[in-house]
Amino acid sequence: MEQIHAYRSHNCAALRSSDIGKTARLSGWVHAKRDHGGLLFIDLRDHYGLTQCVFASGTPAFAAAETARVESVITVTGNVVERAPGTTNPKLPTGEIELRVDTLEVQGPSDVLPIQVAGNENYPDELRLKYRFLDLRREQVHKNIMLRAGVIASFRRRMIESGFTEFQTPILTASSPEGARDFLVPARNHPGKFYALPQAPQQFKQLLMVAGFDRYFQIAPCFRDEASRADRSPGEFYQLDFEMSFVTQEDVFNTIEPILHGVFDEFANGRDVGKPPFERIPYDVSMLKYGSDKPDLRNPIVISDVTDAFRDSSFGLFARIIEGGGIVRAIPAPGAGGNPRSFFDKLNEWARAEGAGGLGYITFSEAGPQGPIAKNLSPERAEAIREICGLKAGDAVFFAAGKELDAAKFAGSVRTKLGNDLGLIKAGEFKFCWIVDFPMYEYDEELKQVVFSHNPFSMPQGGMEALEGQDPLTIKAFQYDIVCNGIELSSGAIRNHRPDIMLKAFEIAGYGPEEVEARFGGMLNAFRYGAPPHGGSAPGIDRIVMLLADEPNIREVIAFPLNQQGEDLMMGAPAPVPAARLKELSIALAMPPKPVKS
Amino acid sequence: MEQIHAYRSHNCAALRSSDIGKTARLSGWVHAKRDHGGLLFIDLRDHYGLTQCVFASGTPAFAAAETARVESVITVTGNVVERAPGTTNPKLPTGEIELRVDTLEVQGPSDVLPIQVAGNENYPDELRLKYRFLDLRREQVHKNIMLRAGVIASFRRRMIESGFTEFQTPILTASSPEGARDFLVPARNHPGKFYALPQAPQQFKQLLMVAGFDRYFQIAPCFRDEASRADRSPGEFYQLDFEMSFVTQEDVFNTIEPILHGVFDEFANGRDVGKPPFERIPYDVSMLKYGSDKPDLRNPIVISDVTDAFRDSSFGLFARIIEGGGIVRAIPAPGAGGNPRSFFDKLNEWARAEGAGGLGYITFSEAGPQGPIAKNLSPERAEAIREICGLKAGDAVFFAAGKELDAAKFAGSVRTKLGNDLGLIKAGEFKFCWIVDFPMYEYDEELKQVVFSHNPFSMPQGGMEALEGQDPLTIKAFQYDIVCNGIELSSGAIRNHRPDIMLKAFEIAGYGPEEVEARFGGMLNAFRYGAPPHGGSAPGIDRIVMLLADEPNIREVIAFPLNQQGEDLMMGAPAPVPAARLKELSIALAMPPKPVKS
Repeated sequence: MEQIHAYRSHNCAALRSSDIGKTARLSGWVHAKRDHGGLLFIDLRDHYGLTQCVFASGTPAFAAAETARVESVITVTGNVVERAPGTTNPKLPTGEIELRVDTLEVQGPSDVLPIQVAGNENYPDELRLKYRFLDLRREQVHKNIMLRAGVIASFRRRMIESGFTEFQTPILTASSPEGARDFLVPARNHPGKFYALPQAPQQFKQLLMVAGFDRYFQIAPCFRDEASRADRSPGEFYQLDFEMSFVTQEDVFNTIEPILHGVFDEFANGRDVGKPPFERIPYDVSMLKYGSDKPDLRNPIVISDVTDAFRDSSFGLFARIIEGGGIVRAIPAPGAGGNPRSFFDKLNEWARAEGAGGLGYITFSEAGPQGPIAKNLSPERAEAIREICGLKAGDAVFFAAGKELDAAKFAGSVRTKLGNDLGLIKAGEFKFCWIVDFPMYEYDEELKQVVFSHNPFSMPQGGMEALEGQDPLTIKAFQYDIVCNGIELSSGAIRNHRPDIMLKAFEIAGYGPEEVEARFGGMLNAFRYGAPPHGGSAPGIDRIVMLLADEPNIREVIAFPLNQQGEDLMMGAPAPVPAARLKELSIALAMPPKPVKS
Repeated sequence: MEQIHAYRSHNCAALRSSDIGKTARLSGWVHAKRDHGGLLFIDLRDHYGLTQCVFASGTPAFAAAETARVESVITVTGNVVERAPGTTNPKLPTGEIELRVDTLEVQGPSDVLPIQVAGNENYPDELRLKYRFLDLRREQVHKNIMLRAGVIASFRRRMIESGFTEFQTPILTASSPEGARDFLVPARNHPGKFYALPQAPQQFKQLLMVAGFDRYFQIAPCFRDEASRADRSPGEFYQLDFEMSFVTQEDVFNTIEPILHGVFDEFANGRDVGKPPFERIPYDVSMLKYGSDKPDLRNPIVISDVTDAFRDSSFGLFARIIEGGGIVRAIPAPGAGGNPRSFFDKLNEWARAEGAGGLGYITFSEAGPQGPIAKNLSPERAEAIREICGLKAGDAVFFAAGKELDAAKFAGSVRTKLGNDLGLIKAGEFKFCWIVDFPMYEYDEELKQVVFSHNPFSMPQGGMEALEGQDPLTIKAFQYDIVCNGIELSSGAIRNHRPDIMLKAFEIAGYGPEEVEARFGGMLNAFRYGAPPHGGSAPGIDRIVMLLADEPNIREVIAFPLNQQGEDLMMGAPAPVPAARLKELSIALAMPPKPVKS
């Protein structure tokens, strides 16, 4: 017999009926054991799959198999045989054969397990994370982590094929101006000084453009010392960070759309993926039609402005709001007109819980408009609303009234609520859009000052001319978000690469040149030595994998996540540090006072 | 005319004589300007290449070109024309054409430069790092960084093709047992506790094996708070971290050799790359033949043991050393026999500067052995040495005598010195080898205790049986180094995955089970739930790129390196932090006392 490998001649997904008669050696984990009297069955599992192994009673292998606990690692050698008629398993690629085992060697025995690997039992997060090395063996988590790896590898391949180059940017660096809280790292050789972990490689990727590298990307680890959320892991997260020189906003879209579409399509598993070009929706339009700058386009409901229909009307509540400068938005609910009163009452309660005054509505029947508002409104006005919203008999429409932004956002909440409650959101579909033309500035009522709306480092549309000649509140920025199914994957922008335009942009928001130089001098200085026009974005990897895995919690798509308190329960991090180490770093603990017991 | 892109119709390496007659738009940096009276020439540079642009005097473009400083970013539009006969540049892909410019737009003007981009002037490191965004535009650095990106992308592609999957392991984690100093990160929500940045993902990659992922790799950022060296950047570095389950040492070699060979070959640019299988050299043999466990196999000199030739000889110095338990190693110097006395005197001086007593030698001429040692040695013994070393007339041989390890290492230094001085090291060649069979333990004379020689987590050869039955100092480990041209690219090992064997291995080195559990309980605990045999390695990316780029300093192959003091002069890191931030982190500065002035 030829020499057989010490651990395996095949992996546990490899053997087929064409291998019947061969000697094979497999290694893996005891996934499940079944004792059928004279025969013992073990489903042996490795990364690749499962193979059924059979042990005949009375053999030494049988005795060893009997004592091996589930999840022990064993190596088995034996003959590949056909399964008995009626016992083949068509769901398993190896389901036509089994391994009749002659010898069994235990490579790594297992203690009694704190959580089971086989089966679908639910365990508390704390237990799963403490024994993550077991949790990761479970089918769904294992699949999620492989999906994540596949998505990242696919992004890399596609970015490189599209002419991008991956560069590593520093992880020990300076505080960044992104605004969230940095993690700090004491610098041992520089007492009193600290490195910061990057919130994003924003400045470095722009410096790479200034350095002439043209098309950068990185699957970039980013760090924010912020509270965790379902879609944000505490501590670190990854983004597909990219930047391009000599591009317009449309160039960025046209470059990244096929890549995003390609990756989603590759892992969609039969789900529909919206094809490029993705819809470009101006911010103002998105706020009007969807009541959000992260619209879920799977929801067919489109909001309309019906302020004019209520202006000076006999429905006093709305008329007064409009007179006070407010607006009214209409959220159509197709087919909802026939619902009983309780349906509308429940929605009204929901609206009150959301902080709104209530949720007015009109239903349309063959007999015309119905309901409390319709009673107080002329038929012509109700008809105008019906027409604006494209409603027919059997439909309903709800209203959100108030100050423009408030009413718009609440209309958006109603849209989402109705989409879900009425089952209008098509599952198994990925719908993308770009939100564009974000306002550069907004008026801060408290500060009584024009402030930046979003990213101060975006190029204002119209450049210096706009800054010098236009009402700041009318200036749009070359800034854009990519949204999928209502989830913002990323913000991006064509950057402001001109020191003169940047200083002017900050001046409008109330920052003098000294302050700008002090806070952002590094970038400004670099831009003074020949900076190319450039722009990019940074879609969040974890969120994309969550979407593709259809998992509501980000911890399900990260191999070793911290828990919600930012702890690694398996490795014991964070942990106390000997005083001598702190002394080396020229720091000391300054513990907060203990809360006084009452 | 069809719509032309706002910034470029072509990049600066694209235009050819087939484009003559076309209108083209280019964007890039003003690399060089030459004023030829009525004509102004600008070499326009981007990431891809150079194109010569011509401006005719009297045109508005000419005036704009005259005032644009070098390294300004400009966009030029004009006609592609044939260069005048005799002015074509065959070294440039675009050398047959030039762009006759009609319009010039300045996108990003440049101030007067602190360092020049064109040309090969040398600048101090401090200046280069402060203006790294300019330094990175320079041809050699730009090329190095692109090489680095190419090497990493090639590793990734080859690893994936070989069945590996890339996983991200945590960066905010717990202190690791690697032994170097960790960087620490205060945990804001856990006063008094700290995360550590990983020195390597060692534990996580082993946990991934325990979790059943079979073949892991990662281009992994690693962090060590250690002093910088020419081949080690302070702070962070990258390694091709990989690990495999159910493998023997030979499996690891056979898997990674074609990948290493493939990457080196891809970027060798005509240099010879040693083909797999790479030579496997037992540690003991390497120490004997090369006086090092990182042998440079380009050096043809092979050391021999000549202890027996000097034992009880009339050359008293060596005879006494041998009587005291020492050894004598011979380092042949082919062709060096004819050198004047000064050659040998200089080497003797060098040896003394290295801390040796001197450097004895014999030369061989047609007349037989010559020199001070030969005078005190019987001709038979000299002849024995000549034979052992394979020398002929015209050759010389040097000797290193002393305690075994000291003499072996010094012989290695002599071998390297002679290889360099005699010009024996063939340039333009990459020679790989594995050093295997490292001793598991060594005897520490100070501690009077058997201690681990290298990695305590490697599997001892012979397993538990060897630990229980063998003299510990004779036990080898399944540990291996991959060496290229005398540079250690990586250590690796088949890991000890058995808690019982690990506890025993530590017991031999004087660690009780409580201490082992306390220090390495995380891994031990994981191994108790079914651990597969596994092993791997982690070749250093930065060192590989240094070798391929033929750069002696690691900073030349990192886009944004810290300086030797661990500072980022461009971004200003590390930096002081407001007291309020420290308070949030429950730490305070504890500055070291200022040195008292004398």
